[in-house]
Amino acid sequence: MLSTMQDVPLTVTRLLMHGSTIHGTSQVTTWTGEAEPHRRSFAEIGARTAQLAHALHDDLGVRDDERVATLMWNNAEHVEAYFAIPSMGAVLHTLNLRLPPEQLAWIVNHAADRVVLVNGSLLPLLAPLLPHLAPIEHVVVSGPGDRSLLDGASVQVHEYEELLAGKPTSYDWPEIDERQAAAMCYTSGTTGDPKGVVYSHRSIYLHSMQVNMAQSMGLTDRDTSLIVVPQFHVNAWGLPHGVFMTGVNMLMPDRFLQPAPLAEMIEREQPTHAAAVPTIWQGLLGELQQNPRDISCMKQVTIGGSACPPALMEAFDKLGATVCHAWGMTETSPLGTIARPPAHVVGTEEEMAYRLTQGRFPAGVEARLVGPAGEHLPWDGKSAGELEVRGPWIAGSYYGGAAGENFKPEDKFSEDGWLKTGDVGVISADGFLTLTDRAKDVIKSGGEWISSVDLENALMAHPEVAEAAVVAVPDKKWGERPLATVVLKEGATTDFAQLKEFLATKIAKWQLPERWSIVEAVPKTSVGKFDKKVIRRQYAEGDLEIVELM
Amino acid sequence: MLSTMQDVPLTVTRLLMHGSTIHGTSQVTTWTGEAEPHRRSFAEIGARTAQLAHALHDDLGVRDDERVATLMWNNAEHVEAYFAIPSMGAVLHTLNLRLPPEQLAWIVNHAADRVVLVNGSLLPLLAPLLPHLAPIEHVVVSGPGDRSLLDGASVQVHEYEELLAGKPTSYDWPEIDERQAAAMCYTSGTTGDPKGVVYSHRSIYLHSMQVNMAQSMGLTDRDTSLIVVPQFHVNAWGLPHGVFMTGVNMLMPDRFLQPAPLAEMIEREQPTHAAAVPTIWQGLLGELQQNPRDISCMKQVTIGGSACPPALMEAFDKLGATVCHAWGMTETSPLGTIARPPAHVVGTEEEMAYRLTQGRFPAGVEARLVGPAGEHLPWDGKSAGELEVRGPWIAGSYYGGAAGENFKPEDKFSEDGWLKTGDVGVISADGFLTLTDRAKDVIKSGGEWISSVDLENALMAHPEVAEAAVVAVPDKKWGERPLATVVLKEGATTDFAQLKEFLATKIAKWQLPERWSIVEAVPKTSVGKFDKKVIRRQYAEGDLEIVELM
Repeated sequence: MLSTMQDVPLTVTRLLMHGSTIHGTSQVTTWTGEAEPHRRSFAEIGARTAQLAHALHDDLGVRDDERVATLMWNNAEHVEAYFAIPSMGAVLHTLNLRLPPEQLAWIVNHAADRVVLVNGSLLPLLAPLLPHLAPIEHVVVSGPGDRSLLDGASVQVHEYEELLAGKPTSYDWPEIDERQAAAMCYTSGTTGDPKGVVYSHRSIYLHSMQVNMAQSMGLTDRDTSLIVVPQFHVNAWGLPHGVFMTGVNMLMPDRFLQPAPLAEMIEREQPTHAAAVPTIWQGLLGELQQNPRDISCMKQVTIGGSACPPALMEAFDKLGATVCHAWGMTETSPLGTIARPPAHVVGTEEEMAYRLTQGRFPAGVEARLVGPAGEHLPWDGKSAGELEVRGPWIAGSYYGGAAGENFKPEDKFSEDGWLKTGDVGVISADGFLTLTDRAKDVIKSGGEWISSVDLENALMAHPEVAEAAVVAVPDKKWGERPLATVVLKEGATTDFAQLKEFLATKIAKWQLPERWSIVEAVPKTSVGKFDKKVIRRQYAEGDLEIVELM
Repeated sequence: MLSTMQDVPLTVTRLLMHGSTIHGTSQVTTWTGEAEPHRRSFAEIGARTAQLAHALHDDLGVRDDERVATLMWNNAEHVEAYFAIPSMGAVLHTLNLRLPPEQLAWIVNHAADRVVLVNGSLLPLLAPLLPHLAPIEHVVVSGPGDRSLLDGASVQVHEYEELLAGKPTSYDWPEIDERQAAAMCYTSGTTGDPKGVVYSHRSIYLHSMQVNMAQSMGLTDRDTSLIVVPQFHVNAWGLPHGVFMTGVNMLMPDRFLQPAPLAEMIEREQPTHAAAVPTIWQGLLGELQQNPRDISCMKQVTIGGSACPPALMEAFDKLGATVCHAWGMTETSPLGTIARPPAHVVGTEEEMAYRLTQGRFPAGVEARLVGPAGEHLPWDGKSAGELEVRGPWIAGSYYGGAAGENFKPEDKFSEDGWLKTGDVGVISADGFLTLTDRAKDVIKSGGEWISSVDLENALMAHPEVAEAAVVAVPDKKWGERPLATVVLKEGATTDFAQLKEFLATKIAKWQLPERWSIVEAVPKTSVGKFDKKVIRRQYAEGDLEIVELM
């Protein structure tokens, strides 16, 4: 029996039309580094979005579901691209300007981008790449920057403002199937080639509703959101689409991501919400310690990308800005969890423990933990398994099916279509997720999992240990066992037997490492994380001096 | 180009699973009239929902998309029915216990309900009706009430708790197409037969997300919602589905809808939100004037169903409870507008004017005004037209296509599928709706519309006028012209010419009535509204003494 409800597709176009009319007076404020920031109302954004669509269609020949790339900071023009490209039926492809040039080139070629919108300030990055971007025919430049860098390039160069000038301020937007592609973003996976995640109109619309739910970020037109998380990074966590829907003012830092201008933005524009990775907030905190300013306008500071150090959270609390953890991935649009403590712990000592989890799954994100043998584990706050998620804004495949020689779909998606996140953790009975490990770093020992992170934290709590990294190494009897590599502090007198005894006070006996090695330093990746691939290789090649304590 | 997102249907089952796990400790509290109310956790509701589905399927043979009726107050068992029936694939059919018995019988026969869940306290209503409810085979009774009233009825009678006892507390819920029927509700239209509105899983899911958006009611698991609006009335404005999704505690009054128990509930259970029609709040206000209590726990009081008198809104403001207007219909699920003033008027004198509008359209409800000649009117706060709406939770047809001999689909739906609301009003540039008339009461005069309500309000502002009703009467030259019927106060000395002069100070000259009649009283409907059908008939049949002032 069918319902009698109207069949109205959930599209980015509808977000655009709603935001630019009902919330026409809300504003996008873009930092310029000059005396005054640049301000543009949602109504103007709506009109210019139509102009941009005309320009792309009439002047640059964008048709059907062609990809249109952006290489841009967070600013009003990027917001216009966010709405114009999907609403005309094309696919917004945000390029991550922090990727190595060869990856960027690979991605542009893979997506077959013919048009790229670029900020003038990013031409030093784009210009030398252009010879390697075969599909690119049109470069559309907005904002300040040296255009002469494009001299001699075999592409057509356009000025963004010139393209828009005189175009009609309305557009006969097509009615789009909600399951069609609206935007895409490549994951910069640490192994293998980048993989394209393609968001649908439906997934963006539903994710936007979720962002606006009171239980989630819950902003209204009385708020201003400082969106530091880049628009090239999972659609800036879905914020531009989401907040445009409800008239939340956007404060966009453009290229001014350094602590000093961020502090100035906050003081002058008084955002009530902000979103960024911990590194940004750590920098801001340092700046504020040197040049104190009142940042208590920020009632809510969303932190994601990696776990927020407790000290950072507490420092912000003292400044009157409440940090709220969130977790997600490019594949999850990205809102997967958000750490709003449940009602009964508010104001109690338990509250901080909840805030330090990755957070609670919102309606729309189903979760399960899968154990070493493929079994589903209980939500008891103890059983650790790989997190798998399902939902209408979660990826079930990648663009083109797969990317890269070593890519196996079964590594990323379960047989019944859930996303394997590659994260290992526990879930409490009330649905709060605590991540403990990456699946590839967990030690699979005799059908049980041992957390490398737990062992490392326990070891690093020893007064004579400077750093410790634990990796899985092959073991004939157990499959895998932990190897502990330890950096001792100067003048340390402890030995492995003592360290193992120390560990035994905190960790179950069967989890204790048999293999130990003293190293001078733990190898690290370019962003400062332990590089466990290197340790495993050193072990395999016999480069580590191993002591066995059975 | 298809997206790579998972294809996960939006179903009531997912709301159920999310609420009963992630928010398992939230509670439904049902008033019992005894020393303690009855409390049941969302986790228990989840388990009992599965038991109810087993009972309906195994014991009563409910199959496929069969309708299952409820004749119940707001209580925990009704919430269980809200989730069990749609989640098993059947269709929840809420019966409005305030309808005249013959309409109730018509509706049960039209929907072919074979099973009805009923509260014991409503058996005095159901029992005498049963002989007229041919399709009903099973009556399932819950809560206190005299079962002997069913003695001799040719149906099978079951006890709700006995049916559930021992059934498994989980159910293998089917995966349902989101466009399938989940629930239905008949409009008690003032003319013609009732018309069935059939909600889909998708429409309920999306409406639930909307209810939870911060810009809308925006509740969280820290809130308790006193749901006075009946569950048989447009799904209690979508609240039970919506708040279950986010763990908002529900406070359910059952049959205790009188001012005194409502005041006691509020004082004892401290709800932070409440939803009801103005009459309920008017009654509560009277009670509080006699027996003052602190109701300032209610940060937000949603009023809908009919416009809230300004005096009532101000009285609640003084009590610390902020009233928020909302507008909707059975056909709109019902959330069509909600009157949260925009950011820039908060704290100014303009705020109250915004709060007294019907409110602003949320994302998901598209609106347009259609003028007398079918033209689309601007949103300028002045141009009055019939409101038409479109969206994924708005009806596009009725159950069975149409109901009643006089029903014409083109009266309710536009050619391009929008719902004609039958309401006439204006929309401001920022999307706030102010309703002025019912379309059938507007006077269509020479291609322009005259508001009967504006004329009535202007007339009733005259110190010697007790009441005034204005209706359209046929006119050879203009098509229709207004007829003013006036009830004068005792000892009044004014005459029609003076009244017309008085009107001319407030109303455009071309809108002034030529035809006038003094009446002893304005005929009223059973709920106290002006009965304009009667006035039009009295005029047509020559029963009114008319004075013409040309």
